[in-house]
Amino acid sequence: MEIDKYSSVPLYAQLKTLITERIDSGVYPEGEQIPTEMAFCKELQLSRPTVRQAIAELVSEGLLVIMKGKGTFVRTEAKRLNITGFSAFKFAFLSGQSLEQKQFVDYRRLDFAALSKEQQQIFALNKNGNERGFYEVIWTERQDNRVYVLCHSLIPVAMFPSLTEDIHDRKSMIDITANRYPLLPQRANWRIFYRPSNQIEARALDMNKGAAVLISEAVFQSRNGSICESSAAVLRADICMLQFDPSSK
Amino acid sequence: MEIDKYSSVPLYAQLKTLITERIDSGVYPEGEQIPTEMAFCKELQLSRPTVRQAIAELVSEGLLVIMKGKGTFVRTEAKRLNITGFSAFKFAFLSGQSLEQKQFVDYRRLDFAALSKEQQQIFALNKNGNERGFYEVIWTERQDNRVYVLCHSLIPVAMFPSLTEDIHDRKSMIDITANRYPLLPQRANWRIFYRPSNQIEARALDMNKGAAVLISEAVFQSRNGSICESSAAVLRADICMLQFDPSSK
Repeated sequence: MEIDKYSSVPLYAQLKTLITERIDSGVYPEGEQIPTEMAFCKELQLSRPTVRQAIAELVSEGLLVIMKGKGTFVRTEAKRLNITGFSAFKFAFLSGQSLEQKQFVDYRRLDFAALSKEQQQIFALNKNGNERGFYEVIWTERQDNRVYVLCHSLIPVAMFPSLTEDIHDRKSMIDITANRYPLLPQRANWRIFYRPSNQIEARALDMNKGAAVLISEAVFQSRNGSICESSAAVLRADICMLQFDPSSK
Repeated sequence: MEIDKYSSVPLYAQLKTLITERIDSGVYPEGEQIPTEMAFCKELQLSRPTVRQAIAELVSEGLLVIMKGKGTFVRTEAKRLNITGFSAFKFAFLSGQSLEQKQFVDYRRLDFAALSKEQQQIFALNKNGNERGFYEVIWTERQDNRVYVLCHSLIPVAMFPSLTEDIHDRKSMIDITANRYPLLPQRANWRIFYRPSNQIEARALDMNKGAAVLISEAVFQSRNGSICESSAAVLRADICMLQFDPSSK
């Protein structure tokens, strides 16, 4: 299409259509930089504010991406990772098979008072065991060389008294959970939702702040009825395909 | 904070911090319009490109939202809908309890050749039953007066020969599925992922094109082993909280 200065369609809207057409037809390929604002002004005899508005709207619609200090690029459909066997238990620390797949970001001990209101309500169901506080364990996991999830878990110290030492010593999960079968996650209350990432999540997941993440939150009850773990997994929404095992009704 | 023209921090970055602080402190409340570019230029003695860059980056980070022809607004955290009992079967047409909760957008008959390659591969597993084609049923569902999901289902005509007439006559699901127990969804292959919405989805879900949606895709096998339905539910990511029933390991 051409820009028509006498059309009733605003110039910025015409430019949006033109850029979109050029993306669809491959003139501006996926992942490639588009011309600068100045280049559009020159090529099409448009004012800078007109060009700015068109680009800003295409950015807010997700077709273009601004990379700080680099320029404006056509969004790429990143290759998806198939996260197989997805379930509430997939990111439970205490259900994990091995520590080797986990890259620890932090583990520390918190008092009950230091938990969020929501977390306090969850663990208040445990009549005792809260007075010794909680371990907060934070780690990331990779697949195909990409970090795709940032996991947080809260675990009562009373149930796993030497957890941070065990992690530090790189004990195997089998040893950590040995003889603690009644305390391991057995039942889950689970939910998934979407939100923009905050700065910490963005840094850990190697994405822009505000980029989409999927949150998988679960509260785990052990065989003996206590709340043994509360977990939140923050997944890169742009690359994760959550694959559930076949399920029956 | 104040804008410091002699700082080594770029002016646009200082303005970003200033706007973010005003949002955090409630000077610019959630969902409200922020001042125009010109107003920022005047108040803080900044150039228009500086103001534009700050706002464009806050938009791409999701803190601000441009509403066409209206201005720039502080993002609101929409009140979430709890979508309870979430599972692969929740949005299967053939598992539905009643047609009353469904608002039909379209239902039509398609030949095998008209299906997407992916859908053809799915139904190719059925040795016969494909030659009569498929019903495509499209509907939306509401909760708290908000449309939150756009559902598509493909169902082989051979298995439910009078489906569109039954829908048209507003037959009850009990009558539609009577005596067809071996053909109803019994086992699901299921996955969830995120992507920006296309124009049709955006219109049906009353959101901007490119706004985030969660896709819940499932292929259902019936008790007799045939593929009885392939479904895709497109959920508004900004308002849906997917709540699973408690599950056991």
